[in-house]
Amino acid sequence: MTRDSAPPTAGRPRLSGEATGSPRQDIIREATALFVAKGYAETTMSEIARSAGLRQSSLYYWFARKELILQTLLEDNRTSLALAAVLEAQPGPVAPRLYAVLHADVLQLCRAPLDFYEFERVARQQPQNFGAFFDDYTELLRLTESLVRQGVAAGEFDGVDPADTATAALGLNEGLQRHYRQPLPGVRSYTADQVCRLSADTTLTRLLVHREAIESVRDAAGELTASWTATATGS
Amino acid sequence: MTRDSAPPTAGRPRLSGEATGSPRQDIIREATALFVAKGYAETTMSEIARSAGLRQSSLYYWFARKELILQTLLEDNRTSLALAAVLEAQPGPVAPRLYAVLHADVLQLCRAPLDFYEFERVARQQPQNFGAFFDDYTELLRLTESLVRQGVAAGEFDGVDPADTATAALGLNEGLQRHYRQPLPGVRSYTADQVCRLSADTTLTRLLVHREAIESVRDAAGELTASWTATATGS
Repeated sequence: MTRDSAPPTAGRPRLSGEATGSPRQDIIREATALFVAKGYAETTMSEIARSAGLRQSSLYYWFARKELILQTLLEDNRTSLALAAVLEAQPGPVAPRLYAVLHADVLQLCRAPLDFYEFERVARQQPQNFGAFFDDYTELLRLTESLVRQGVAAGEFDGVDPADTATAALGLNEGLQRHYRQPLPGVRSYTADQVCRLSADTTLTRLLVHREAIESVRDAAGELTASWTATATGS
Repeated sequence: MTRDSAPPTAGRPRLSGEATGSPRQDIIREATALFVAKGYAETTMSEIARSAGLRQSSLYYWFARKELILQTLLEDNRTSLALAAVLEAQPGPVAPRLYAVLHADVLQLCRAPLDFYEFERVARQQPQNFGAFFDDYTELLRLTESLVRQGVAAGEFDGVDPADTATAALGLNEGLQRHYRQPLPGVRSYTADQVCRLSADTTLTRLLVHREAIESVRDAAGELTASWTATATGS
């Protein structure tokens, strides 16, 4: 169920960007910017409403308490983790499952209200509020490592070290999402879809015993993701 | 010529870390921390001396002017770029040359007085002082792309897109150096040598038509780097 059709905004200027057309997204983005700048405890609901260009009553329509904004922010940061947990346990060829997980992870890093490295910095500073960030990271790394191990065992992948490979795969995701979010001056910029594909293609092509299978792996990964999304959203 | 045998330090506490035993390195590190915290223009030589635990006369022995510290900082950031410029133009097999460049780049990112992403942030804020950072990045990317193109043309590498591959290779370097500099809590940590090797191995194994050549490529790269270092330092 979505509330994206609901109350009109007051149209005031945003703290950290353009209105997205989704008050819920605007609230999460502006609240995140305030949590980063001032700390979670020091941020008030009225400041969030002001930054999001909403009347306070409209803010309360979307989020009845500040805790619920934080919870949503952390949950949004877990989408690829949820997919990884499902696909890691699923039978069938490993390559499309790993591809789908890596692709989803970059996409999430690209769409998050906060850059990964900024999020990490905040999590170190405010572990009482954002400590789940590190637990989630450790779990995503573990699931990625498990998928690599499965692929090696199944003979789909080269005989790599699964822990190193998982570290490199997530490190590449983190390095490349940055090229989308904050492209360096003078350097070619990428769309979110392009960096997702570049990252997942690079890791899987390095791993596949049969490199030429990369296109069918990519297609199969797309189907896995679409099917999971349909189930997860109940559509 | 090195001055690393010269005047004893006053032994005062450092702003941002332990003494390295090299006053020159301590000065660069402490000056960098101050440039980041206060801005280059606002940092005085006496503040740098105090942070580095040196008498002002000792600081002037190493660096007669503040501009020379900044210049050294930026030049230190160019070592892998100098190697890349030499190796890109050199004849012979491409794979060891690309391996050597990528390995040197990660090593430099690991040893720099500032994290890559922090450096980038400062360069955006103070382009008048640190703008060379972006020019150097663009040039390193161009040289990396040229090496990939040479490898494809020579039949050593798969038929990849050179620009995308260079972006992914440097993105992986950036993502992985972070795992050395600021390992996430609960996640296995790597030495600088380990992340250098992991990054260069990952990119080259993805590219090589004959993957099993990776060990000899690594060895040949080590020889190229040693030979270049000997020439560059005149030893």
